[in-house]
Amino acid sequence: MRTKGTSPDKLKTQAAALLDKVRITQPRIHCITNSVAQTFTANVLLALGADPSMTVAPDEIGAFVSGSDATLINLGTLDTDRRQAALIAAETAKGLGRPFVLDPVFAHKSSSRKKLAQTILALEPSAMRGNSDEISGIEADDRKVVLAETGSIDTVRFCGSIAKLQNGHPLMAKTTAVGCALGAVIAAFLVVEEDRFLAVTAALMSFGVAGEVAAAKANGPGSFVPAFLDTIHNLATSDIEKLGRIS
Amino acid sequence: MRTKGTSPDKLKTQAAALLDKVRITQPRIHCITNSVAQTFTANVLLALGADPSMTVAPDEIGAFVSGSDATLINLGTLDTDRRQAALIAAETAKGLGRPFVLDPVFAHKSSSRKKLAQTILALEPSAMRGNSDEISGIEADDRKVVLAETGSIDTVRFCGSIAKLQNGHPLMAKTTAVGCALGAVIAAFLVVEEDRFLAVTAALMSFGVAGEVAAAKANGPGSFVPAFLDTIHNLATSDIEKLGRIS
Amino acid sequence: MRTKGTSPDKLKTQAAALLDKVRITQPRIHCITNSVAQTFTANVLLALGADPSMTVAPDEIGAFVSGSDATLINLGTLDTDRRQAALIAAETAKGLGRPFVLDPVFAHKSSSRKKLAQTILALEPSAMRGNSDEISGIEADDRKVVLAETGSIDTVRFCGSIAKLQNGHPLMAKTTAVGCALGAVIAAFLVVEEDRFLAVTAALMSFGVAGEVAAAKANGPGSFVPAFLDTIHNLATSDIEKLGRIS
Repeated sequence: MRTKGTSPDKLKTQAAALLDKVRITQPRIHCITNSVAQTFTANVLLALGADPSMTVAPDEIGAFVSGSDATLINLGTLDTDRRQAALIAAETAKGLGRPFVLDPVFAHKSSSRKKLAQTILALEPSAMRGNSDEISGIEADDRKVVLAETGSIDTVRFCGSIAKLQNGHPLMAKTTAVGCALGAVIAAFLVVEEDRFLAVTAALMSFGVAGEVAAAKANGPGSFVPAFLDTIHNLATSDIEKLGRIS
Repeated sequence: MRTKGTSPDKLKTQAAALLDKVRITQPRIHCITNSVAQTFTANVLLALGADPSMTVAPDEIGAFVSGSDATLINLGTLDTDRRQAALIAAETAKGLGRPFVLDPVFAHKSSSRKKLAQTILALEPSAMRGNSDEISGIEADDRKVVLAETGSIDTVRFCGSIAKLQNGHPLMAKTTAVGCALGAVIAAFLVVEEDRFLAVTAALMSFGVAGEVAAAKANGPGSFVPAFLDTIHNLATSDIEKLGRIS
Repeated sequence: MRTKGTSPDKLKTQAAALLDKVRITQPRIHCITNSVAQTFTANVLLALGADPSMTVAPDEIGAFVSGSDATLINLGTLDTDRRQAALIAAETAKGLGRPFVLDPVFAHKSSSRKKLAQTILALEPSAMRGNSDEISGIEADDRKVVLAETGSIDTVRFCGSIAKLQNGHPLMAKTTAVGCALGAVIAAFLVVEEDRFLAVTAALMSFGVAGEVAAAKANGPGSFVPAFLDTIHNLATSDIEKLGRIS
């Protein structure tokens, strides 16, 4: 990990403190997310202590984003309503100076997705989450947006700082919408911490540690889901300090 | 509790009997509900012994409502299809004299929602479920519609009768779509009982008792979901008589 | 069971081998399915070892079907996007000679569904799954499409061959989207086996055995869901050989 003089141990302590801050603050997070991920994402936010709303109707999206502390824009199932809503949400959040997170799902698989992702990226989201194909596919610049690249090792990059996070469990990739829900968790952490690099790193660490703790209690991807939500709800800050792995 | 001479104990016995009647009758319930709540709502109805259908396509909604014993209209995620479908469903149900339930989610947060909710309310749904902001926001009249106001204490009001129900558990608010599913359960109870005040009270009592029993077995909001569905499926009428709390 | 000289025991061994082949091949399955079933279907495919995508946007569907090994077209919640996407998907899959599965949900309940189902059927899907009302309602010809009719006993018919499968459990009908997810599992098996009758039979047998094993661990329809996904993930081929029931 290379960041402005912050040691891994200090970062773990800071991440744990931010988890507590999210629980106390109960930030309102509006999510434009795909229909596969909506229920799970709402449940992850509730388990985290945040307050989700999920409508994708274009004529309402401005009001919902304005009433929220941060917004997630996930391009997973991109129908006509979501396409319009995504742009309105990004413009509204930018206009208000509120955090918003872009998850450019499958941006490398369809030219219309790539174009929309780049249009939203030009509005300067606070952070972007994706796998390496998605992030490299839309040529994001880590001087403007915090890049959270998830994979077997997660990497957070921003303006020369880099954190490599080694938490998580293979069952997380065997459950739909886990990655999508992470985008919403990042949004929640951005509400309580202005240092975006720290906020995103803390979100990924909390999420990965919760995944690890839950997987140890699960018999497969089915029982992983309730175990993961229970763990997010019950996670002790000491678990993050004890189990967080940064290199 | 103030209602036409019915004692709390008698109401608990009646509520328990209605739960059995729902299981025997297996009412067909059509749900226009938000995309976050669809799966959970269908599973709650199946666990209850009812037979759900969930399409929101405007050109089919008339046929599906006509083929159902009762209908739920929930305004959660209000896209173009759902907006049209909601009105057609309300008009169809009213025309057939079948029970329908309105859940005016977020009606106080957007003027277009409020207007749609009021238009549907003018078609005289059998019952309306919401929190206090939603119900006061659309100025519903408890002489025409049974009002089920949910919160830390649930209140049912109709034509001067009032029941205050003290079942439930905080985990129910930590799981998305629990309130939305309650709307569908109310619809199912309205099929088997003409006394609307009694039907709605019985639905809320059964739901709250199930939540309490399930929460006692859960480790958090994740394990609450399967425990709640199992409990609805397995709930004994004696549980309602034993655990129901009305004041 | 009557098929070209294949004994029930041999079929069980072949079915078990195909399950392994699906896990090794990790086929990409694109699903146009209803909004109630999307999350569960994606999770079933992931548990099975397949790689799901779920978008229903008409302008993207061609690219997603082209990038997949097989496609499911389920008519459950039939909005404008899905209606268009279903046709494009069927035409794309047919043009590429890739397997696709039709699930004509409620085709007997609405004339517009029936017409769409018949149009897709004329494009010759590899297999069709439905209950007896749905299959008889659209007059499918088992010389052109493998017919998987599910009920208390499942029947697979194709060109004179017939298999009757007696696995499964009543809890499967108490959980929404179980039947819909089976359509996606059939698509996955069709990728790894050219003999369509065998592929569909193996899919139904694996699914039914998993349902039985899961139900034995569940306390009701709620705990059945995680148990079922765990079981699909962990199912041993010896379980299929031991528990499969064909007559």
